[in-house]
Amino acid sequence: MLNALPDLTDPTAVLQRLVHCPSVTPDDAGALATLEQLLLPLGFAVARPVFTEAGTADIANLFARSGTAGPHLTFAGHTDVVPPGNTADWKHPPFSGIIEDGELYGRGAVDMKGGIACFVAALARHHARGGLPPGQVSLLITGDEEGPAVNGTVKLLAWAAERGEKFDACVVGEPTNPAALGDMIKIGRRGSLSGTVTVRGVQGHVAYPHLADNPVRGLMALMDALLAEPLDSGNDRFQASNLEITALDTFGNVSTNVIPGRASASFNIRFNDEWTPESLSAEIERRLALAAGNRRWRGERDEPLAFDVAFRPNPSDAFLTSDAALTKALSEAVQSVTGRVPALSTSGGTSDARFIKDHCPVVEFGLVGKTMHMSNERVALSDLETLTEIYDAFIARWFAAHA
Amino acid sequence: MLNALPDLTDPTAVLQRLVHCPSVTPDDAGALATLEQLLLPLGFAVARPVFTEAGTADIANLFARSGTAGPHLTFAGHTDVVPPGNTADWKHPPFSGIIEDGELYGRGAVDMKGGIACFVAALARHHARGGLPPGQVSLLITGDEEGPAVNGTVKLLAWAAERGEKFDACVVGEPTNPAALGDMIKIGRRGSLSGTVTVRGVQGHVAYPHLADNPVRGLMALMDALLAEPLDSGNDRFQASNLEITALDTFGNVSTNVIPGRASASFNIRFNDEWTPESLSAEIERRLALAAGNRRWRGERDEPLAFDVAFRPNPSDAFLTSDAALTKALSEAVQSVTGRVPALSTSGGTSDARFIKDHCPVVEFGLVGKTMHMSNERVALSDLETLTEIYDAFIARWFAAHA
Repeated sequence: MLNALPDLTDPTAVLQRLVHCPSVTPDDAGALATLEQLLLPLGFAVARPVFTEAGTADIANLFARSGTAGPHLTFAGHTDVVPPGNTADWKHPPFSGIIEDGELYGRGAVDMKGGIACFVAALARHHARGGLPPGQVSLLITGDEEGPAVNGTVKLLAWAAERGEKFDACVVGEPTNPAALGDMIKIGRRGSLSGTVTVRGVQGHVAYPHLADNPVRGLMALMDALLAEPLDSGNDRFQASNLEITALDTFGNVSTNVIPGRASASFNIRFNDEWTPESLSAEIERRLALAAGNRRWRGERDEPLAFDVAFRPNPSDAFLTSDAALTKALSEAVQSVTGRVPALSTSGGTSDARFIKDHCPVVEFGLVGKTMHMSNERVALSDLETLTEIYDAFIARWFAAHA
Repeated sequence: MLNALPDLTDPTAVLQRLVHCPSVTPDDAGALATLEQLLLPLGFAVARPVFTEAGTADIANLFARSGTAGPHLTFAGHTDVVPPGNTADWKHPPFSGIIEDGELYGRGAVDMKGGIACFVAALARHHARGGLPPGQVSLLITGDEEGPAVNGTVKLLAWAAERGEKFDACVVGEPTNPAALGDMIKIGRRGSLSGTVTVRGVQGHVAYPHLADNPVRGLMALMDALLAEPLDSGNDRFQASNLEITALDTFGNVSTNVIPGRASASFNIRFNDEWTPESLSAEIERRLALAAGNRRWRGERDEPLAFDVAFRPNPSDAFLTSDAALTKALSEAVQSVTGRVPALSTSGGTSDARFIKDHCPVVEFGLVGKTMHMSNERVALSDLETLTEIYDAFIARWFAAHA
C-alpha cells in the first residue's frame, strides 16, 4: 500500500498520508488500510471489521491493540470526513495536504485525522524510547462518525466487548479547543432530544376563514410555549439547556387561496444533567398541553387545539465523566506542555463519546476546531507537535497512575 | 355533434348535456361546441376564440350575441370544472348527470354549468314567447376560470372590446347562495393580496446557538405583528379585512442538528374598500418594519431583524357595483320568484367579476354553492327551475328599465 513508511514520530508526515485518502462518509478510500500500515510497525495487532445494516452503506472500522493484559487505555476517533463542498472555495485541493505558512490544508486536518496522527506519533515516540508502559493501549477508529453513525462506534464497541476487550478509560480525539490548544477538555456532553409538534386544523378557502381553522395560529401559540420560559438556568457542571426550532412545515400547501390543514414545527433540545430524555419529553408535553388548553379555536369550535408531538427515537443522555484520575492525568499533561490550565467543559455538540460512556469513563481532547467543516480546513504544524507532546505525556501519566 | 336538441326551455335537459362533457381545466372536452349548438337555434351568433400564451395551455372560449344594437346585457361564466377527485367517493359518476331523489349529480352542476343552463333556458323561454326584448343579449363563457385564468375572461373581454362590443351590464352566474336560492346577490368583492415574508438569520449548529441566529424566533415576532391587530372592522358595504398565513417554510432544513438560515411565512389578505393594494402593502411593510425594529437578535448582534417581504404581482382590488338599476332589477326578480329579499353582499372569494368590473357594472347571482368543489356536487331540479324563472324575470326587468 505504501512505498515507504513516513517518520512515524512526525505527526505532520502521518497526517499527510491520512489526508490523501478522500474518505468522505461512507467511503473509506484507503484511510483505514493506511492507518493499519502505520500501526503494525509499532507492535499493534489490527482488525478491520466491516459492519452492515439493511438500508445503510457498509462501513469499514478499525480496532488495534498493543499489549495483552493490564490497565487498558483506548483512543477513539474517526477517519471519515464531511464533504469538501465547492472545491473552488479551497486555496489548495481538499485532499492534497499541502503546507503553506506553517499550516497543513485538508478536509479532516482538524476533524479529526489530525488527532489520530498526533496519537500515532505519540505512540511512535514511546516506541522509539523503548516501548509503551506495561498494559494495553488500543485504538477504536470508525468510518461512520460524520454519517448516520449506525455502522460505526456503537457496533465497534459491541464487537470489541464480544471479543473480551475491556477498557479502563478512553480519550476521544475530536477537536475540543475553541481558540487555542489547551483551552478545553470535554468531560461530558449535553443530551439531545428532537421532536416535531403538529397542529391539525381544518383546511379551507382563505375567503371563508370561518369555515376553516388555520393551524398556523395554534402552532404559533405552541411554539411560544416551548420558547417562552427557559428550561433551566444551568449549573456548575453544565450550561443551560436550550431549545431551537429547526424546521417549519405546512405540508406542501402552495396555493395562496388555501388555509392549510396541518402545520408543524420541529425542534431540537440540547439539555443538561438536570433532565433525562424522559423527564424532558414529559415537560415538553406538559407545556404543549397547557398552551393547547388555553388556546381555543376561533369561531364555533369551543375546544382545545388538536395537536400531537412525536419525539425522534434514540435521544442521547447528558453525561459527565466521574473518573477524577483520568481527568487529572489529561489536564496535567495539557498544563505540563502548554503551561495552561484547560477548562473542563460539557459544552457543544454530541460525539461518539455518548456511546463510549456506557463502556468506560471517557474524556475528549484534540485540536482547535475553528476551521472544522469549513472550506480551507487546516491545522498549524505547531499545534500538531504540541498535541503529540500532550498525548505522549498523558499516556505516561495515565499508566503511572494505574501502575 | 348532437343527434337531437333537448328541450331548450328545460334547464335540467340543458345541464345534462353540459355535464356529460368532462371539461376539467384546461380541457374543453366538447363543452363549448355543445353550448354553441344550443344557442344557434335561439338566434345567437357564436364565436369560439382560442387564446394561447407561452407556458400555459391553449384555452377555448365562447362569445355569443343576439341582437345588434340597443342596450347590451351580458352573462358571464365558465364551462371548465375542477377535477372530480376520487371518483370512488361519488355516489354517481361525476360526468353522468344522473338524477336521484330530485337532484342532478355531476361536477359543475352548481359551479357553474347549472347557472349557464338556467340562463340558456331563460333565453329559450323568451324565444318561445316571441323573442328577446329589443337590444342585445350576449354570453361571455370561458374554459379557464378554475385554472390560471390567463387565457380566459381577461382575454375574452379584450377580444370583444377590439370587435366593438360594449356592455351596459353583466351578470356572473357563479353560485352565490350559501344555503337557499334567493339568499344572496353579490354586488362587489373584496380584494386579494398575497405575499411572503422571509427572515434571514445565521445558519449554524444547534449545539452552538450563540454562533447562529435562529430566524424562526424573528419570524414568529413578525407573524405576531401581522396577526395581532385587525386591519379594520369592516363597514356597511364590506366585512372586515382578514389575513391568513397559508404556508411556512424553512427551505429544506431537514437536519435536526442545524439552525436554519432562513425562514418564511406566506400570507393572503382579503381586504375591503378601505384599502387599495398599495395602501395595504404599505401597512404590511410598516407593521413588519416596526416589529423588526423592536425585535433585537439575541446574542451579540445589536441590530434589527433582517427580513424582506415580497408581494405577488397582480393583486385584485376591492370593488362595489354602483349601478343601482342593475341591482334593483336582479333583486326584484329574485323577490318576485322566491318571495325573499336577497342580501346584497361583498363576502367570499374572487371571481372573474374582478376583470369584468373594468368594462361594465357587474353583479353575481347563481345557484346554491354548498356542494361546489366537493364530491357528489349536485343541484336540486327545483333550484334549476327557480333560477331559470329568476333569470327570465331579470332579463325582462332589465330591458324594461333600459327601454
